[in-house]
Amino acid sequence: MFSKRFKQLTPYTPGEQPQNREYIKLNTNENPYPPSPLVEKYLKTADTDLLKLYPDPSSKKLREAIGEYYNLPPSMVFTGNGSDEVLSFCFYAFFDKDNGSLLFPEHSYSFYPVYCGFYDIPFERIPLEKDFSISVNSYIKGKNCSGIIFPNPNAPTGTYLKLPEIERLMSNTRKDRVVIIDEAYIDFGGESAVKLVNNFDNLLIVQTFSKSRSLAGLRVGFAIGNDKLISALVTVKDSFNSYPLDTLAQNAARIAIEDRDHFKKNRDNIIETREFTISNLKKEGWEVLPSMANFIFIRKKGIPGLNIYGFLKNKGLLVRYFGYPGIKDFVRVTIGKKKDMIVFLELLKSVRRK
Amino acid sequence: MFSKRFKQLTPYTPGEQPQNREYIKLNTNENPYPPSPLVEKYLKTADTDLLKLYPDPSSKKLREAIGEYYNLPPSMVFTGNGSDEVLSFCFYAFFDKDNGSLLFPEHSYSFYPVYCGFYDIPFERIPLEKDFSISVNSYIKGKNCSGIIFPNPNAPTGTYLKLPEIERLMSNTRKDRVVIIDEAYIDFGGESAVKLVNNFDNLLIVQTFSKSRSLAGLRVGFAIGNDKLISALVTVKDSFNSYPLDTLAQNAARIAIEDRDHFKKNRDNIIETREFTISNLKKEGWEVLPSMANFIFIRKKGIPGLNIYGFLKNKGLLVRYFGYPGIKDFVRVTIGKKKDMIVFLELLKSVRRK
Repeated sequence: MFSKRFKQLTPYTPGEQPQNREYIKLNTNENPYPPSPLVEKYLKTADTDLLKLYPDPSSKKLREAIGEYYNLPPSMVFTGNGSDEVLSFCFYAFFDKDNGSLLFPEHSYSFYPVYCGFYDIPFERIPLEKDFSISVNSYIKGKNCSGIIFPNPNAPTGTYLKLPEIERLMSNTRKDRVVIIDEAYIDFGGESAVKLVNNFDNLLIVQTFSKSRSLAGLRVGFAIGNDKLISALVTVKDSFNSYPLDTLAQNAARIAIEDRDHFKKNRDNIIETREFTISNLKKEGWEVLPSMANFIFIRKKGIPGLNIYGFLKNKGLLVRYFGYPGIKDFVRVTIGKKKDMIVFLELLKSVRRK
Repeated sequence: MFSKRFKQLTPYTPGEQPQNREYIKLNTNENPYPPSPLVEKYLKTADTDLLKLYPDPSSKKLREAIGEYYNLPPSMVFTGNGSDEVLSFCFYAFFDKDNGSLLFPEHSYSFYPVYCGFYDIPFERIPLEKDFSISVNSYIKGKNCSGIIFPNPNAPTGTYLKLPEIERLMSNTRKDRVVIIDEAYIDFGGESAVKLVNNFDNLLIVQTFSKSRSLAGLRVGFAIGNDKLISALVTVKDSFNSYPLDTLAQNAARIAIEDRDHFKKNRDNIIETREFTISNLKKEGWEVLPSMANFIFIRKKGIPGLNIYGFLKNKGLLVRYFGYPGIKDFVRVTIGKKKDMIVFLELLKSVRRK
């Protein structure tokens, strides 16, 4: 009963969302603070009569608000059902099996190979450097690629690539190959490559409302780039599902991006808690990769990552363990509220070596 | 910069959603009545703090509510971002270019050929009967198909195929070929083929909250069928976008399907207005195809459909004109509130022959 392409699928595995027990959840990089209070205010007074009508298929007002935030016209903004859907549309539109492999980091967002499986796109995983950073040189070497994608900061490592390095990558990449910078975590201290899109027509930036805007539950993501890339994404959307963003999500996201004060306060809190957590971990002898994200990637000599994960879960605190070769010692820990990080730091003192 | 598959796309064209003028909108089959008042109540008191967390990727509670409505277990229910996304996943999972053509009616939902283009699926359009109905015989004849899909009631015609005919189709179709009945309009007088899914493992029913539940703005659709078909759709979803339904949409849709009284009142009103409209049209010499939907497909000898459409639009009332060979005389008219239909009937008296 199933198509050939279906039989080859390997789906993505999201992080645990346990229903049966109250955990301190530091495993899925959610924001510990609520979204802008203006979102709540909007929902309280929303005209539900309007829900009988289809939403604006082009999310015009939301794209205008995002454009305004970045000083770009709305024609350079595409919105979708979370950055996952935006990424999926990108893989469809830009990457091909006829143009060589798509390049992405060996340790990175694990949905990338899933999209490749979904659309039958060959890919090559580029190893990280010894310090787990992304090296632009190894992507420049791969001239015959169908495209490049990586998160910046990278996940699950948290390491950040500076803008001049991205510029160097772009200057050394074929102009007919699309480069996607997946900036899900850019707001926690990094500088967005959005400011480069007017210099490089083949550069696309993908962002999300799920992390820094505290709206993971609302499913809104977006892409910013040259008009041609954006209108290609619109064509893909209109060939798949014309209305992926419902009326409430469009309005609430617009209101959230307009509330810059709430955003800054929220982000500054998380950065402060991250630095607090890192300095305490280092005092206790933990290795912490440099992070510009709302999570950290940590290990301690002699303790397998699975032990850390299992010990903490048993104590009612969830972190994410990946277990891939090369990063088996690590766990990824979302930065939560300070009080939760204090519990985490305290629990960690009792993790035993094997 | 674009993939080969992208270059072959022909996107879907949704009905007009004019922003510049107040029209009486009878063109996109929206419900003229608001959704259940319990939806408004829910939004007023929704815990927006929860929006910082990812939604349930499996929409468990919503699937349970839909299952309860149809007396089926939630394992037989799949939910997605509008029935368009559900259909798109179906085309990916079930139809192939190696198994012959997908069969659907010549005049039908115009997204079907778009999905076929998106996933490179060959298709064959099966002509309607002279009375514009769907004939099961012409689908049985096409034994070597990769699958069958049609809306019931069909759009844009409104004609309805009775359950014994669907049973006859299923009994004469290979068990390894999936048949999809797209029941977007089933609630307006038809009998759902959901009651056949336990008899036929290859039968999948697709429905939506956009029409009879007045929630087009919320983007919720679902499919009902054998566990194997449903879990295939889950695999496709998890290879494309794990969380297509946001928290608000999941909760509001669940609340809407639980409010049976509002649903019945709303539906009965539309059916009553439809019959009122049809009988008045017939008095004025209009031909109206028998409709079990929330729209009607009408023509009058000697008046081109484009004239009807243009005349009404000029007067501030939108209907849908398709202009395809074979149905060029017709316009499709959504059943709105009675007062709007009275305006429509009045305006129609002045439509001139060419």
